[in-house]
Amino acid sequence: MNKNQYHSISLANIRLNDGFWSKRAELIAREVIPYQWDALNDNILGAEPSHAIENFRIAAGEVNGEFHGMVFQDSDVAKWIEAASYSLHTYLNPQLEAKIDLVIELMGRAQGPDGYLNTYFTVAKPGERWTDFSFGHELYCAGHLIEGAIAYYNSTGKKKFLTIMCSYADYIHSVIGAQDGKRHVYCGHEEIELALIRLFQTTGEERYLELSQYFIDERGKQPCFLQAEPTFGYSVKTKWFDLTYHQAHRPVRTQTMAEGHSVRAMYLYSAMAALAKEKNDTSLSTALEKLWDNTTQQRMYITGGLGSQGHGERFTINYDLPNDRAYAETCATIGLIFWAQRMLLLSPDHRYADVMERALYNGALSGISVDGKKYFYVNPLEVIPAVAEYRHDHEHIQIERQEWFGCACCPPNIARLIASLGQYVYSQTSSTIYTHLYISSEIKFQMNGQSVVMQQQTDYPWKGDVAITLKMAESQNGTIALRIPGWCRQQQIAVNGHIIEELAIDKGYAMVTRTWKNGDKISLRLDMPIEFTYAHPKVREVAGKVAIERGPLVYCLEEFDNGSNLGGITLPSVSKLVAKFHEDLCGGVVVITGDARRFDDEQWGTQLYRSEKCSTKMVNIQAVPYYLWGNRQPGGEMTVWIRKE
Amino acid sequence: MNKNQYHSISLANIRLNDGFWSKRAELIAREVIPYQWDALNDNILGAEPSHAIENFRIAAGEVNGEFHGMVFQDSDVAKWIEAASYSLHTYLNPQLEAKIDLVIELMGRAQGPDGYLNTYFTVAKPGERWTDFSFGHELYCAGHLIEGAIAYYNSTGKKKFLTIMCSYADYIHSVIGAQDGKRHVYCGHEEIELALIRLFQTTGEERYLELSQYFIDERGKQPCFLQAEPTFGYSVKTKWFDLTYHQAHRPVRTQTMAEGHSVRAMYLYSAMAALAKEKNDTSLSTALEKLWDNTTQQRMYITGGLGSQGHGERFTINYDLPNDRAYAETCATIGLIFWAQRMLLLSPDHRYADVMERALYNGALSGISVDGKKYFYVNPLEVIPAVAEYRHDHEHIQIERQEWFGCACCPPNIARLIASLGQYVYSQTSSTIYTHLYISSEIKFQMNGQSVVMQQQTDYPWKGDVAITLKMAESQNGTIALRIPGWCRQQQIAVNGHIIEELAIDKGYAMVTRTWKNGDKISLRLDMPIEFTYAHPKVREVAGKVAIERGPLVYCLEEFDNGSNLGGITLPSVSKLVAKFHEDLCGGVVVITGDARRFDDEQWGTQLYRSEKCSTKMVNIQAVPYYLWGNRQPGGEMTVWIRKE
Repeated sequence: MNKNQYHSISLANIRLNDGFWSKRAELIAREVIPYQWDALNDNILGAEPSHAIENFRIAAGEVNGEFHGMVFQDSDVAKWIEAASYSLHTYLNPQLEAKIDLVIELMGRAQGPDGYLNTYFTVAKPGERWTDFSFGHELYCAGHLIEGAIAYYNSTGKKKFLTIMCSYADYIHSVIGAQDGKRHVYCGHEEIELALIRLFQTTGEERYLELSQYFIDERGKQPCFLQAEPTFGYSVKTKWFDLTYHQAHRPVRTQTMAEGHSVRAMYLYSAMAALAKEKNDTSLSTALEKLWDNTTQQRMYITGGLGSQGHGERFTINYDLPNDRAYAETCATIGLIFWAQRMLLLSPDHRYADVMERALYNGALSGISVDGKKYFYVNPLEVIPAVAEYRHDHEHIQIERQEWFGCACCPPNIARLIASLGQYVYSQTSSTIYTHLYISSEIKFQMNGQSVVMQQQTDYPWKGDVAITLKMAESQNGTIALRIPGWCRQQQIAVNGHIIEELAIDKGYAMVTRTWKNGDKISLRLDMPIEFTYAHPKVREVAGKVAIERGPLVYCLEEFDNGSNLGGITLPSVSKLVAKFHEDLCGGVVVITGDARRFDDEQWGTQLYRSEKCSTKMVNIQAVPYYLWGNRQPGGEMTVWIRKE
Repeated sequence: MNKNQYHSISLANIRLNDGFWSKRAELIAREVIPYQWDALNDNILGAEPSHAIENFRIAAGEVNGEFHGMVFQDSDVAKWIEAASYSLHTYLNPQLEAKIDLVIELMGRAQGPDGYLNTYFTVAKPGERWTDFSFGHELYCAGHLIEGAIAYYNSTGKKKFLTIMCSYADYIHSVIGAQDGKRHVYCGHEEIELALIRLFQTTGEERYLELSQYFIDERGKQPCFLQAEPTFGYSVKTKWFDLTYHQAHRPVRTQTMAEGHSVRAMYLYSAMAALAKEKNDTSLSTALEKLWDNTTQQRMYITGGLGSQGHGERFTINYDLPNDRAYAETCATIGLIFWAQRMLLLSPDHRYADVMERALYNGALSGISVDGKKYFYVNPLEVIPAVAEYRHDHEHIQIERQEWFGCACCPPNIARLIASLGQYVYSQTSSTIYTHLYISSEIKFQMNGQSVVMQQQTDYPWKGDVAITLKMAESQNGTIALRIPGWCRQQQIAVNGHIIEELAIDKGYAMVTRTWKNGDKISLRLDMPIEFTYAHPKVREVAGKVAIERGPLVYCLEEFDNGSNLGGITLPSVSKLVAKFHEDLCGGVVVITGDARRFDDEQWGTQLYRSEKCSTKMVNIQAVPYYLWGNRQPGGEMTVWIRKE
């Protein structure tokens, strides 16, 4: 297989014009990025100061002061620049660009003469560089800064930030690596690995690829240097902060289970997938297949949420997926999207895109409020506010989205995801264009050397109809590969009005091959009925329950629509649910309504235990998309899984 | 109401000869008490030394050394003496008595000239007496020593220990109390209150009753002195270790909900009930009614387990009763038995005895292995070993009974409960004898001045038939009150073979009044079918599930009988279960078998989520009494609650 057989399409060649996503991308550009800029500059009244920009000023020696914030505070600035840069592709904004330029200049002044750039170790821990790989996040911050530099370079063509980061990467390359005299180390929190591969892809400099490969190859060799660090095990030194926490328990090619801190794991697997592609390394892709299966078939919430435990923000054991105590960090779900995208570039398969879509529309999107101003770090699938607020084992659960976080990793991560969403929609070979997601958009690409503009128009995720139009100067032979989602039981494709009777399906993609000409229209119809979804019989927390899904969306019941004690609701064995678009609800949403049986609590009385079943009454229930929960009435009950007769 | 209308029967006048309990009482006498003696003296190979006796030697100045163990290590010795003393009523044992005498002499030498007796504060914290009421357990230990002294005096007539403890109590009375110049304090862990009432009852000295009343009246006055202590809030200083933890958030008469550390709460309520009786204090008994209702109707596991959270070993909020993360400490369930007994002495009502019986046969008895050698501190209602061993929120769960504990409160508490079980079976007025529990036994009591011997014979808890025989010199008018358990739907009582057609039932007791003569026989038949029990619709963890109960016993499914993934089992809507006595099973047990539906896991395949329900197969299941779980195959799955169609 040619390693370059599948490649992505640059953001410069993609424009979204989608009813669902474009308003969110615009919100990111118009509201979130300016808000986060104010946050980074400590200009938000009442919010805990971020100090992130101030840290750079202190590191540059321009003001006096102490470092404040998390050890990885620099990465907030990096992710903000990355998100802002993506948004510049669509929303030209010279003022924003000028702000970024000022930050980049500040970073240049904060950079050491050797290229080193990290405000925490410069200001708070001078002389302690490269001493805390377990929790110092030193290379992690470097990775995010590199990604920011690449994004800014790609959207503006300005090289300054890229030059700063190449200089830092060169310095890292000079002190860490396989060679004698260099440190044999890697970062406790992965990120640098995938950033270096992108830096290689952007600059063509092989040493960045080599350094990334070094980090990946070195990881998990035993005995592990991390264990010798005083910080190893965090302050609590429990089994949950062991080598698995860092995915360092064994060499990565021999890992078969998704272990440890779930964001770290996703960033590692994403880098492994990118490296497997660059190096055509089947030992990596074989390991990734196992890790993918374990992640998505034994350790993933139906929302695409990852991490079943708050303590260690981590994976636990197979099929252990409690809904009320889920961690399901927004960043982990975003990491799963990164990974899925890179798996698709190794080899398209609807399994990856199905998970990417599930994660995007549910566990990631739930991380941000409809108005773009509030964020969930943790995304449980069941919330009973009184329990979540009281119980010790719910300490990590927030029942309302928060404005900004002391540890602010999720908000800028969502911002950069949505601002760069275009890159997840398509990929291609020289002759085939793959459509992974159904999002109204226009792209430019080459099909066998011929320039093609392809327009996709859809009301997804509310409707399963997709119209595709091709614009090209001359006719050209090629394949339009359209993903048939795993949730879809019946689909139809027509070209210029003629239904294709026998679809050629390859790994879940309908491969429509012909000589395409200007103006050709493809119509795809994906049946999108309401489905009841069951979990594997070993997922004990949902035995006897179903989730309601429709298309890519997982639904939930909220107290706002259904009153409290949602656990008292049962869907009857024959259940007629109806989907209906509500224009006025949070910008337009398909809600699902129908009859259900419900405990008649008041009939019960005061006994705690008795021999007679609680009587039930028929009620009408309303389900809304999971991502929407907590937007109308923060602090109410919510549940995804519902008992079913 | 005459405060002495209802009174208990002394252990000296009760002899158990019960198929179920006597072998356990004998095990306590023959195995557990000698084993615990060795443990207290650090003579058990491989076990963590208790150091409890050694602490007294150091305090007495007879050996050099440092205090070791918990701050309340003295109470282990106290509870051991109490249990051993009870056992001496039934099992004469001069060697044991001699050992106790030696310990008592040692205690006398360890006692200060002012009467003070506490090894922790004497050896480890000299000069720091009365500085840590939050966690010092100083008065708590005093309380247990007083209870030990009373028990030893009652069984042997020897006064030495009682004298030592009266001297200590007098000292406490001289430094703590309402008067100016005394400390206005109470113990963070209740126990002294109920012990002082017993000391008053034993000695007739009113000052002990007054001191107990002071502690109870003072508790919860605001501002609270506990908050000013450096130890307040424990090392973690979270909301779970606040004033509610100590039941000190408001004056006890205004408390309406069972709050805080569940053992502390039970010991407080027990003392309040005893004081309410002694003082005929209706403000206390009114508060107790509310606390009883809240405890048993909103915060109690079906096993009689109390405390839904490991962190703080405490109550949480109403209807929050997770099965897998239950704390349900053995000592709390024992405390509930203490409380229920005292409520029965205020006014007999089957509600109290029902709970007492539920706690005794389930949540308390599960605390000790059938061979008497291993103990559960925590009694969950569902265990999945892999989850319990991995998850952080299960850290307090042990999947096997343990031999002895660093914090050894439960084993000697079970020992003293079982060794003194006779005192819970009956109570009386001058004309009425109440039978609260059905346990084969013989008692002596006075009925309107006439000496009566009453024999109770039963195969309870396996069968609901009870035969009672009266022996008396002359005929006498009086009432035999027989509890009709709340679980019983049909009962029959015959006197000398003649069925009583219309039973006079008063608060759940069948009041059989007549002129009794020597040789009269009463036959009671309690129907004991298998029952499915449902929980209040707000107990979210068991919605759609049932517990299997038969008579006083809660049943459970174990992996040993049913294989793993017990959550995959559903009881069909029409369920035929059969109860059968198995002679060979752990000394003879009624097991329950029947058909159930079960996930056919293997049919499912690898998908985590899908639209088709998992197919099921019919299987035969076997349920065993909850108290028995983990005796045959430690470390297996177990569940009390089972899904039901």
